[in-house]
Amino acid sequence: MEVLGEAVARERAGHRVIHMEVGQPGAPAPSPVIAAAHQALGGPLGYTESLGIRPLREAIAAHYRRTYGVDLAPDRVAITAGSSGAFTLAFLAAFAPGARVALPTPGYPAYRNLLGALGLEAVEIECGADTRWALTPEMIARAHAERPLDGILVASPANPTGTMYTPAALDALVRAADDLGIWFISDEIYHGLVHNGVQATALASSDRAIVVNSFSKYYCMTGWRIGWMVMPEVLAKPIDRLAQNLTLSNNEISQRAALAAFDAASTVELEAVRAGYAENRALLIEALPRLGFTDLLPIDGAFYAYASCARFSNDSLDFVRRMLVEAGVAATPGADFDAARGNAYVRFSFAGTRADCAEAIERIGQWLR
Amino acid sequence: MEVLGEAVARERAGHRVIHMEVGQPGAPAPSPVIAAAHQALGGPLGYTESLGIRPLREAIAAHYRRTYGVDLAPDRVAITAGSSGAFTLAFLAAFAPGARVALPTPGYPAYRNLLGALGLEAVEIECGADTRWALTPEMIARAHAERPLDGILVASPANPTGTMYTPAALDALVRAADDLGIWFISDEIYHGLVHNGVQATALASSDRAIVVNSFSKYYCMTGWRIGWMVMPEVLAKPIDRLAQNLTLSNNEISQRAALAAFDAASTVELEAVRAGYAENRALLIEALPRLGFTDLLPIDGAFYAYASCARFSNDSLDFVRRMLVEAGVAATPGADFDAARGNAYVRFSFAGTRADCAEAIERIGQWLR
Repeated sequence: MEVLGEAVARERAGHRVIHMEVGQPGAPAPSPVIAAAHQALGGPLGYTESLGIRPLREAIAAHYRRTYGVDLAPDRVAITAGSSGAFTLAFLAAFAPGARVALPTPGYPAYRNLLGALGLEAVEIECGADTRWALTPEMIARAHAERPLDGILVASPANPTGTMYTPAALDALVRAADDLGIWFISDEIYHGLVHNGVQATALASSDRAIVVNSFSKYYCMTGWRIGWMVMPEVLAKPIDRLAQNLTLSNNEISQRAALAAFDAASTVELEAVRAGYAENRALLIEALPRLGFTDLLPIDGAFYAYASCARFSNDSLDFVRRMLVEAGVAATPGADFDAARGNAYVRFSFAGTRADCAEAIERIGQWLR
Repeated sequence: MEVLGEAVARERAGHRVIHMEVGQPGAPAPSPVIAAAHQALGGPLGYTESLGIRPLREAIAAHYRRTYGVDLAPDRVAITAGSSGAFTLAFLAAFAPGARVALPTPGYPAYRNLLGALGLEAVEIECGADTRWALTPEMIARAHAERPLDGILVASPANPTGTMYTPAALDALVRAADDLGIWFISDEIYHGLVHNGVQATALASSDRAIVVNSFSKYYCMTGWRIGWMVMPEVLAKPIDRLAQNLTLSNNEISQRAALAAFDAASTVELEAVRAGYAENRALLIEALPRLGFTDLLPIDGAFYAYASCARFSNDSLDFVRRMLVEAGVAATPGADFDAARGNAYVRFSFAGTRADCAEAIERIGQWLR
């Protein structure tokens, strides 16, 4: 976040900056979504039901049937203000104060910060190449034996690593949570953006899993603040009550517009965007090792490359600052994602254009020479 | 909320229902706001700064200068997802777990529920005609002596009562909070909707006050989920950090559109809406006592009439249910707002059309005969 501020300041001062620090699609929302928003502006707009308008909840349930073969009552779908809104509701509904939630590192820092702000404890477990950066039932059993856990939270594809759980690895972990009687929260916000491997939803393994997703990433709708959560039946009522008091309801324009995100015409546009990410990914997989970055993690999904800059610096915050000022390329220091090992890592987001990605590689190469 | 569900169900079954249960303007957002939203849809939309786009923060600071003569750095303005988003951030930033916050009853139930969900304690203090339904420094001193308070939260104009603090009463209360070294949170969401008396902002008394407001009520933008908070300088940084983790950012379409809410052309439209409320208010002040409702509270502001139905029933939930089914008029039972005395009270929202308001009076009159 600090890097974003510095990047914006440099742009204001007239420098051109290539943005590889923000996890945000460069492409706009699909045109059917924008058309639906224009149409919504012509109708009445007001408070909606707290958990969202019925047609959108039904469309999301249909999406699970179509995409994963999972049958879902629309009553189990909650519309939220992005995935952020879903996490707040899920954490408050599922956990009592002081509850302990296991997370893998490296991982998205907002999980830890949000848990902390709500009086919950993030139990960070280091993951590495040996488990393909995934939590395993054995790690959970060990942590739980040390001091009981109340939940597990994983993302697949993951931020910042881009790594994915195999369907079998995810299934084993979800079942381990069920066996221990603790909550499993699956952040599936990067679903749809898979380059290698098969995406599985935790709902295929257990209807006790809490699944969080959003229209921000695959659907290119970050600025619309609209996401969703699939709730275990037992949490649907408490989450509804919480939502009535925490948010009242969600933006109705975004809700009406998001309905069009599932249109066939939207899918055509979004698949073209995804093909662009795949090209950027190929560029980086070729270039980063050649430029001297090591330990590039397998980019199974999402739009992040996470690699070591240890050959150049063991202070990744200083490294990205210099890269911003001297090469005009913004990236995110690994310390944001992994307090213990992140100082040697950098995250590059490749959700921009191919031209920007190629130019960034060129600039970094010249700079490092 | 239960009544809203029943009212919607009756409408689905083909009955006509006059909605006096929802605190929501019947009028749409001003046309400059809708035009600005159409325009925003043509530009790039993405994550914005967590506390909102700069021009909107500046426009709100200018609004305080213009409306109240209060000078304010735009850095002290946070854009939020309605007032609900502001309360969550304010409570988490200002209070430690277990903190005690004094509130008047009758009052808006989401305060109490949200405090509870975040592990804070709502200390409800009964108010009545003797203090014009306002908390006083003496009440606060008494409660604080019993067990220390950490904050005070009041709304003026208030929901459900429509009563307002005089500028002197508000000033005394804000200063009492400052003297005790506890937080003062001022819900000013109904500002702009004043029928009788002078609206004062808590910021005029102290720059330690936390002021919450929204585009939902006066500006007729409920469905847009956009509000704001004025933060004491010392809370600006913690609230920014919380917002980065809790919400990331707010809907950009709504932020761009809200800028136009301060246009002169918007004010013309909104003042016409307000004049309509004033007519409805006059109708109800004449009709409710004539129909047999007693103890009608002075409707200084907002769009609520709060009156006793004790002549007909001491179970206001049953009363509003029968009124819905037998007269086709939906209202809110007082028990939602005041556990001890609300069973004899009903809240009517008069934010709809004059025709609806007149028909509701006619229907209730026939029904009670």
